[in-house]
Amino acid sequence: MSSSQDTVAIIGLGLIGSSIARALRERRPSSRVLGYDLDSSVREQVSALRLFDAVAAIPEEAVRDAGIVILCVPVGAMEEAARSVAPHLRRGAVLTDVGSSKSAVASALRRGCPGAAIVPAHPIAGSDRTGPGSGTSGLFEGRWCILTPDPQCPAEAVERVSSLWRSMGAKVELMTPERHDLVVAATSHVPHLLAFGTVLGVTEMETVCGAEIMTFSGGGFRDFSRIAGADPVIWRDTFLSNREAIREVLARYRETLARLEMMIETGDVSALTATLETIRAKRLRLHSPNEQEP
Amino acid sequence: MSSSQDTVAIIGLGLIGSSIARALRERRPSSRVLGYDLDSSVREQVSALRLFDAVAAIPEEAVRDAGIVILCVPVGAMEEAARSVAPHLRRGAVLTDVGSSKSAVASALRRGCPGAAIVPAHPIAGSDRTGPGSGTSGLFEGRWCILTPDPQCPAEAVERVSSLWRSMGAKVELMTPERHDLVVAATSHVPHLLAFGTVLGVTEMETVCGAEIMTFSGGGFRDFSRIAGADPVIWRDTFLSNREAIREVLARYRETLARLEMMIETGDVSALTATLETIRAKRLRLHSPNEQEP
Repeated sequence: MSSSQDTVAIIGLGLIGSSIARALRERRPSSRVLGYDLDSSVREQVSALRLFDAVAAIPEEAVRDAGIVILCVPVGAMEEAARSVAPHLRRGAVLTDVGSSKSAVASALRRGCPGAAIVPAHPIAGSDRTGPGSGTSGLFEGRWCILTPDPQCPAEAVERVSSLWRSMGAKVELMTPERHDLVVAATSHVPHLLAFGTVLGVTEMETVCGAEIMTFSGGGFRDFSRIAGADPVIWRDTFLSNREAIREVLARYRETLARLEMMIETGDVSALTATLETIRAKRLRLHSPNEQEP
Repeated sequence: MSSSQDTVAIIGLGLIGSSIARALRERRPSSRVLGYDLDSSVREQVSALRLFDAVAAIPEEAVRDAGIVILCVPVGAMEEAARSVAPHLRRGAVLTDVGSSKSAVASALRRGCPGAAIVPAHPIAGSDRTGPGSGTSGLFEGRWCILTPDPQCPAEAVERVSSLWRSMGAKVELMTPERHDLVVAATSHVPHLLAFGTVLGVTEMETVCGAEIMTFSGGGFRDFSRIAGADPVIWRDTFLSNREAIREVLARYRETLARLEMMIETGDVSALTATLETIRAKRLRLHSPNEQEP
């Protein structure tokens, strides 16, 4: 039997929760991994996949022996999930999560689980696929996981969560929740909003210009808009829980875009060329192992 | 020796020009394919690749026997390219191009080559790689090529260009230049502008928030922003030559985005959920053979 420190409870067994289970089974076989999901059909699906040492029928069974409890539910469901595990946490257990906004989630976890050691976390990894069947053991390999613990949080609790993510192949970084929220608004939330807005814009234009606009899109549009196929509930919650940072970043990007637009309107060839060259150089520094770029 | 109808001259030997040569060599071996580029180092590079029956040292050599002359130069260089071939076109030759805006290019071709049979064309295919070494014979396979001939253009000329593109695996569609320009502004030009604007926005935010913002981006940002690595000269010209349609589409998308933002600001959960579900369903209808989507 594993020690409680090596017992991990995962609450919410979708893409991320099931990927954590797969990664731990493969890379940290000493861990005992227990799972729970509010949805009984998900519990049945996950039981059949045999990813967990046990899939619990009630939260208590999953968390009572666990040294780490990871909430892998949509951001809007974090407080309720924290509340459901709070009475059953063992002494010294660390509560963490995988939500993509951190100021709002940290508050929700504190409200739901007052007094617990809380280490909010955000693994920057995902897929536009959803559900436990889509998880993979390598989802976090080489990816960042940002932790945003309170200054008062015991170092041991932070280290326990860091070590868990490192064992799954992630690179761990600590920052304040406010800084995290601005960084992800800039590199993820606002880009998602722009992609969602563009696909909605195309849809609305089709009613004006005839039904074939999206048919004539190329590979560039496909890549640009892939994230507009992401899960609506996850993204509704993400947008709502990070609205201040999104508002700030969107205002900045609008201004930046207006400057580009002005260069086009005025036909400012040299400014436009220089700016597009700067952008290209910046973008080409962002390589992906799966991307074919020069 | 091929007939003049089967002699194709390609002016501008970058990604697209060299891909046409490769595709014709592979799929229409009866064609004689001649090339010319203003840049002597490109001519040398292309000669070494042996993609053409001959690489000409002056435009006249490439075009004087050709039944089809294809200008594969940036949109802003079309008029000059048309002017350079105009005195040497044989009787009955068709002039066409591959530019990604069509109203401005059609005018440029008419000014540069008055009296010629002109069939403006736009193959919706590309890459963020540039140059003759990056071309591939399958670049147009299964892609749309939109033709925007004048109503007065002889049907035989239109058919000659259509047939050329079909032989390279493209699907051909005819529309007015104005409709084309709106369609590509919606599905390509404005998405490129948004991607360029976002990468520039991230760059500018890094000076405010520290140097690490883009480091923490994930796969979604990488896909979304891939097109911001596209060629600056091509895109400067594209933006400048289609500014009216871009202005119109950008105004529409701004309005659409403002509606999404308002749902977030007011916390309108049900409207936001329903809208994101509509967007996701729309996006998932756009499949790509290279894309892993459910």
